[in-house]
Amino acid sequence: MTQPRHPLTDAERIDWIRLIRTENVGPITFQRLLEQYGSASRALDALPELARRGGRAKPLRVASKAEAEREMQANRRFGARLLCACEPDYPEPLAAVDDAPPVISVAGHAHLLRLRAVAIVGARNASLNGKKFAESLARELGAAGLLVVSGLARGIDTAAHAGSIASGTAAVLAGGIDVVYPPENEGLYRDIVAQGVVVAESPIGTQPQARHFPRRNRLISGLSLGVLVVEAALRSGSLITARMALEQGREVMAVPGSPLDPRCHGTNNLLRQGATLVERADDVLRAIENLRPPTLAERQRDLFSAPTHTPSPATEPDESDLAKARALVLENLGHSPVTIDELVRGCQLSAPVVLTVVLELELAGRVQRLPGHQVSLA
Amino acid sequence: MTQPRHPLTDAERIDWIRLIRTENVGPITFQRLLEQYGSASRALDALPELARRGGRAKPLRVASKAEAEREMQANRRFGARLLCACEPDYPEPLAAVDDAPPVISVAGHAHLLRLRAVAIVGARNASLNGKKFAESLARELGAAGLLVVSGLARGIDTAAHAGSIASGTAAVLAGGIDVVYPPENEGLYRDIVAQGVVVAESPIGTQPQARHFPRRNRLISGLSLGVLVVEAALRSGSLITARMALEQGREVMAVPGSPLDPRCHGTNNLLRQGATLVERADDVLRAIENLRPPTLAERQRDLFSAPTHTPSPATEPDESDLAKARALVLENLGHSPVTIDELVRGCQLSAPVVLTVVLELELAGRVQRLPGHQVSLA
Repeated sequence: MTQPRHPLTDAERIDWIRLIRTENVGPITFQRLLEQYGSASRALDALPELARRGGRAKPLRVASKAEAEREMQANRRFGARLLCACEPDYPEPLAAVDDAPPVISVAGHAHLLRLRAVAIVGARNASLNGKKFAESLARELGAAGLLVVSGLARGIDTAAHAGSIASGTAAVLAGGIDVVYPPENEGLYRDIVAQGVVVAESPIGTQPQARHFPRRNRLISGLSLGVLVVEAALRSGSLITARMALEQGREVMAVPGSPLDPRCHGTNNLLRQGATLVERADDVLRAIENLRPPTLAERQRDLFSAPTHTPSPATEPDESDLAKARALVLENLGHSPVTIDELVRGCQLSAPVVLTVVLELELAGRVQRLPGHQVSLA
Repeated sequence: MTQPRHPLTDAERIDWIRLIRTENVGPITFQRLLEQYGSASRALDALPELARRGGRAKPLRVASKAEAEREMQANRRFGARLLCACEPDYPEPLAAVDDAPPVISVAGHAHLLRLRAVAIVGARNASLNGKKFAESLARELGAAGLLVVSGLARGIDTAAHAGSIASGTAAVLAGGIDVVYPPENEGLYRDIVAQGVVVAESPIGTQPQARHFPRRNRLISGLSLGVLVVEAALRSGSLITARMALEQGREVMAVPGSPLDPRCHGTNNLLRQGATLVERADDVLRAIENLRPPTLAERQRDLFSAPTHTPSPATEPDESDLAKARALVLENLGHSPVTIDELVRGCQLSAPVVLTVVLELELAGRVQRLPGHQVSLA
């Protein structure tokens, strides 16, 4: 988030939770609203009118204060903390990501998230050798003082956690902080809560669904200086994590493998595309030794120089201009994603006007945001 | 060689054989002599005096006409042809190499050497999977019209020849054209003589010794547009072939493999250094599709612009200058190799003088040439 980091009061935290749990509000929209209105509370006040202007017929479902309080209490009972992206304890490399989750649940030893971190991910149906390699590499990286981040999946993830449980391991879940997936990793999950740290973006109690996994993967890379992929088929989830690492400016590393094993085609392909080849822990340590964790300050600079910079209220366009702009934006959008920049050029409108219109249309559920500052019709 | 290509008369061929079989004459020296004296015959006449000026006490052992004739006859009886580097049938990509062998023996179907060629080399103690991969890749590259070049060794080489025997395979031997090594590949060797082509630089009848193998490897790469390494440990012969390919400006390709298998450390290391990653035949075909075989014409340009360019006889330095230069060159040389360029700068003499002195000292057995235009005390 773009404000200086500060702990929130309970009332502010309730507002943050209400805003991110509101229909049609994702991390990018959350951030735009916060920039435009200065606080979650004022954004919540503005939401119904914004959605109505965007063309929404029935009222927007805004999360209630009671719902947000219940979420906070459930986390507290479970022993988890809710961290907001503006707070000092929120992991800074993750806060620096464009679509950082505004609120995360953290269970276990949150202080581990201050360590320099590397993600180790890979195939669920990994080979014995792949798992052995991941486990011993995780152990060596842990011994070198790194936090090892992974996704609690079967195969490589499990081996990576197992190897680093004693030194520091972070499991990022696709569902709620209290929902173990896959169920057979219940024991490992308990060990990680006891000795490591668990992170989740979905509200507590959420059963993970297919769409949660790619979103979860951006947290795995976002928490890390780099992502190492150990065995991955073509078109596998681990490659999504690698792509996100790349988009987030993190190091992408891969372990080579036999072309005869389809579980190595994805990793070999990453190498072909320029990923750092890793055969031993030292290769990882060398690849990341000069990397600093991205900081919020850098991201703020990016944001304020990016076309998403918002107008001051004084320059806000009036309603008749917005109505014309809305029609023009809808005319220019289709179901294939375009970048905000392309949309601004295509509409020949000012960036602030286009951004305001997109925000309204998004809250109305007519436009959706996609990775890479892209939008399309919903 | 730098003259326009032309078939030699038997008398000229005898002179070429005599010159290259003469003590202390290697491929680079051969070429320098040919440039300086215009023909092998005139170089043979000049040799004794050159060696004497270089400080040689006992006379240089120059191969006799009778010896050269015996070598020609032995090749003819065996069914092999002797090709000289200036002749039209000598493979052009090999002729373009700096230290191309002046004379090679060729048995079997010499016309195969006109095909676009790729070398496949690798570990002798290769894994079953590695051999299977090499064989099927060789088959597919053969089907795509390429000649597959290798070294008749156990393991990967054997698999590469086996896969391409029907489409076109070339075995390059370290010993004489008639000496099968390793002996267990006798059957494969016979098949290659019958259906493919065999090439050797060593005189017929030569038993291969350890020092012959690295020299042989430069022919494997020199005949090829690129070299693919399938499984190779660190510090293995296949990596020498890869290094020579690089020095010769050929494509270097490698098959990735598990870091847990030491037989993949060499290939993975090549990938780390920028070799093209190969998982299937198509990767090889793409890597070489736009490569032209290096031509003699290009090498001539290189030679004539390189510091090895020789003075015309008119500008040849006189004996008293040469005596001083000889002392200075010997003073500046040690047992660690230096490049000719460094030597010229270190001696503050003209390049033609240094080159002449080095030639004399080399013939006298006091200086040796090393790859990369380097020399050292012998």
